[in-house]
Amino acid sequence: MNVAECKVTIVGLGLIGGSIALGLVGKVGEVRGVDLSDEILASAKKRQMADVLSTSPEETLPHSDVVIVALYPKMAERFIKEHLELFTPGTIVMDVSSIKSQIVNRVQDMMPDGVEFLGTHPMAGREGRGIDKAREEMFLGSYYLLTPTEKNSERALEMVSNLVELLGVRKIVNLTPAEHDALVSYTSQMPHVLASLLMNGFTEPSKFLIGGSFKDATRVATINEDLWTELFLENKEHLLHEMDEFETRWSALKEAVASDDDQALRRMLKQAKDLKEKI
Amino acid sequence: MNVAECKVTIVGLGLIGGSIALGLVGKVGEVRGVDLSDEILASAKKRQMADVLSTSPEETLPHSDVVIVALYPKMAERFIKEHLELFTPGTIVMDVSSIKSQIVNRVQDMMPDGVEFLGTHPMAGREGRGIDKAREEMFLGSYYLLTPTEKNSERALEMVSNLVELLGVRKIVNLTPAEHDALVSYTSQMPHVLASLLMNGFTEPSKFLIGGSFKDATRVATINEDLWTELFLENKEHLLHEMDEFETRWSALKEAVASDDDQALRRMLKQAKDLKEKI
Repeated sequence: MNVAECKVTIVGLGLIGGSIALGLVGKVGEVRGVDLSDEILASAKKRQMADVLSTSPEETLPHSDVVIVALYPKMAERFIKEHLELFTPGTIVMDVSSIKSQIVNRVQDMMPDGVEFLGTHPMAGREGRGIDKAREEMFLGSYYLLTPTEKNSERALEMVSNLVELLGVRKIVNLTPAEHDALVSYTSQMPHVLASLLMNGFTEPSKFLIGGSFKDATRVATINEDLWTELFLENKEHLLHEMDEFETRWSALKEAVASDDDQALRRMLKQAKDLKEKI
Repeated sequence: MNVAECKVTIVGLGLIGGSIALGLVGKVGEVRGVDLSDEILASAKKRQMADVLSTSPEETLPHSDVVIVALYPKMAERFIKEHLELFTPGTIVMDVSSIKSQIVNRVQDMMPDGVEFLGTHPMAGREGRGIDKAREEMFLGSYYLLTPTEKNSERALEMVSNLVELLGVRKIVNLTPAEHDALVSYTSQMPHVLASLLMNGFTEPSKFLIGGSFKDATRVATINEDLWTELFLENKEHLLHEMDEFETRWSALKEAVASDDDQALRRMLKQAKDLKEKI
């Protein structure tokens, strides 16, 4: 099937769902936008985000080629579970959440015959939330991750890849759900842990000494606490492993400072500099 | 004495010294720039950073009203120690390094009669290094910290404050050297520790999952390892204390994750968000 004829339904017109809608509308056969909020649908209409806008899954899910569920992880799973009978055989269902193993596993197990679930994770758009921050160029030049399993078909992978390319991504990368979650605990969850814990040490007089390094280190402390609590707990095994790894490096640095081991300290800092310059 | 008649000698025309020179030249009686490198002096001449440029402390230090030693902490201390006989009574000597207690203590103890040392720390300009990155607006709108002790006179504090105001700073803040070092270990040294340790966990496949949060969290991993090794060790008592404090918060978060305590986790993340939004 040609992607230009594809009927895409997007559930949840927030930051990610709204941006995907903006990126696909006019380039595929039809974009249907579903959201429970009339206010969000009115905003989506004003911005011409979709060909069809509706609060009703019954009206929009059936006969979709692809359904993109752009909700928080737990809500995404619940939404799919509660609307299983609305997916027509042949439909590909995908999510966009930033953890994968458990969700992919549970959702693939519940799919009706002929309906396929593929886990995906766009590496973009983590600042702000809601439809007002959605923008067409959100995914331009960024990586887009797919986490296929043995339950996914070549056809689904190809269709989703073709769709995602319309968003202007730099590269589509396939990983197993477990590989994905191990890596994301390092690249995304750890920065949020560190930023939050650093921020929580703040005292009033510190404000005079805040410079660029502190501001950068705490930027993502403007965290959506509901979403990240879910993400941390859902991925706790990998996150705890990364925290253990961090502790090993932390202890070595602390020991070098405590024992005035300037050579070891310089070596650690130089390693960090070299790695940062490499990437 | 009017600041417009003040003769200022700046030792070391790097990022900070060069920026101070650019900020003062033409606004005070005379700016003398001292550097050991002919290349740096040629660059300073081209950018008209100073009225007098020289490699010779003998030619420039005597009869200065203010000498600003803009070298790395240990070099600053050594420079002052090796040129004590060149400071004329009445001269105010100041440094710009980002740790204070030990340096202020040791340098004030060695000052000849009638020569006064005042510790200072401009809260700006930590990106890049060297004269090429120096710019006149470096200190515009930033805090400038002074760490006077009972050995400093009102006259010196007033003179240095008047000079620093010429740089366009937002506010001059007086702290004791110990207060300063305790705060700086949190606001500046901890971000550098965290950025470096996070960076050192990098593995090749992680690169596909690097987003804005990781980039920000590791920005200062492009660290000057010689300078920061000095800074960490010189301030080790406060840094180790901050690391202990961080460990307490770290353990609480880790425990919340391990025990699926979503309420505690959400509370910690919300605290971070609220603090970040406040500052």
